[in-house]
Amino acid sequence: VVSQHRTLDGHDVTMLGLAKGAAMIGPRMATMLAFVLTDAPVRPADLQTALNQAVDESFHCISVEGHTSTNDTVLLLAGDTTSPPLTDSALAEFEELIRDVCIELARKIPADGEGTSHFITIEVEGCQDRAQARQIARSIANDALVKTAIAGADPNWGRIVSAAGYSGASFEPQELSAWLNGTPVYRAGAVVPFDAEALSAGIRERRETSIRLRLTQGNASARFWTCDLTAEYVRLNADYTT
Amino acid sequence: VVSQHRTLDGHDVTMLGLAKGAAMIGPRMATMLAFVLTDAPVRPADLQTALNQAVDESFHCISVEGHTSTNDTVLLLAGDTTSPPLTDSALAEFEELIRDVCIELARKIPADGEGTSHFITIEVEGCQDRAQARQIARSIANDALVKTAIAGADPNWGRIVSAAGYSGASFEPQELSAWLNGTPVYRAGAVVPFDAEALSAGIRERRETSIRLRLTQGNASARFWTCDLTAEYVRLNADYTT
Repeated sequence: VVSQHRTLDGHDVTMLGLAKGAAMIGPRMATMLAFVLTDAPVRPADLQTALNQAVDESFHCISVEGHTSTNDTVLLLAGDTTSPPLTDSALAEFEELIRDVCIELARKIPADGEGTSHFITIEVEGCQDRAQARQIARSIANDALVKTAIAGADPNWGRIVSAAGYSGASFEPQELSAWLNGTPVYRAGAVVPFDAEALSAGIRERRETSIRLRLTQGNASARFWTCDLTAEYVRLNADYTT
Repeated sequence: VVSQHRTLDGHDVTMLGLAKGAAMIGPRMATMLAFVLTDAPVRPADLQTALNQAVDESFHCISVEGHTSTNDTVLLLAGDTTSPPLTDSALAEFEELIRDVCIELARKIPADGEGTSHFITIEVEGCQDRAQARQIARSIANDALVKTAIAGADPNWGRIVSAAGYSGASFEPQELSAWLNGTPVYRAGAVVPFDAEALSAGIRERRETSIRLRLTQGNASARFWTCDLTAEYVRLNADYTT
């Protein structure tokens, strides 16, 4: 559950978000139900646009194991049909508000993934366009070897870099740099010497892991959220019987 | 190791195949070394063509966890440069021979995957073209929920069908039928009643699992080989330290 308040055109606007679903979570949404409720006065077409933009940067940027389900739902309900609709500047702020609520809600899903011991944020920057950045981020997010490495607190930069490499996005190794929990591990196509024991201890001690990649092709970026892959996840999904 | 003999144009031809590599195995090959040796007299260009065809139906149709590595190699070595090259009909038979050797070799890789308890063969038929069939097969092969279901001997047709659905291949549910170890579980868009306990026992008792899907769009097909996902796989890859 996520709740935010803001004053838009003098209205005291509330937005409430609810979501469920922690497995069968793929990058194009999943067995997931999300509801966003607001009392802001906004035209249906503007609500749809605002929701599409928000979903693109939130629910489309999470995965647990990459399995897209048939049962995804994000519903936006707006009750105020009597007040005059928000002015353009308030509408822009409304779009920001709905994006913030959706991102906060979406992040909670892999954070609550089955058997997960780490919540992983993947940021990819310096890309030609957002599609390229997301393609790289999704490839890393859905990679079993990256996810098991994080579960084992292994600062395995090789698995991260090669998951970016096989993503289908076009780049040269020299264009790529990578950070793990803020520590540079790969720069312009070569490994950077780092204290592996300290980095491993940092992964083990914290529930949140940050993976950051930078290319040198442009200014587009994407953020993606996922969780690690643990033996407990396998047990939960192998012992589950239909 | 795979060895086959055949008589081509009066030559007693031997083909020997060797391969290693059981993890970081993705559908576009992986940390895998494969060598195929033969004493058949074949022109270099014909050898390359024969190898490309063979690899497309063998090493490009296996995965362990879908992680494509940077270190794949398939080498074909042919020593006889003095005899006149094989005639066209013998060359066609040679292409079959190399395909058989490569398929047999490729199948051994996921069969020997880390911590695996099941070797899974996925056959997709009735497609418009081979690319569509392979796209569906690969989506199922790399799906963590399908792989954990097989590890747990769960005849979970829903995970299989929805992995086909999100593969990106275009089809309607009514066009799809599916079999698990030869038992029909889904026909023309609806579940077929089956004895779940017997099917589960059959998966548990055998090391080989067969998943077959059929569309009604054409005559193209593809085969893909993979292994299940076990808690042991996660332990091996989480405890591995760089």
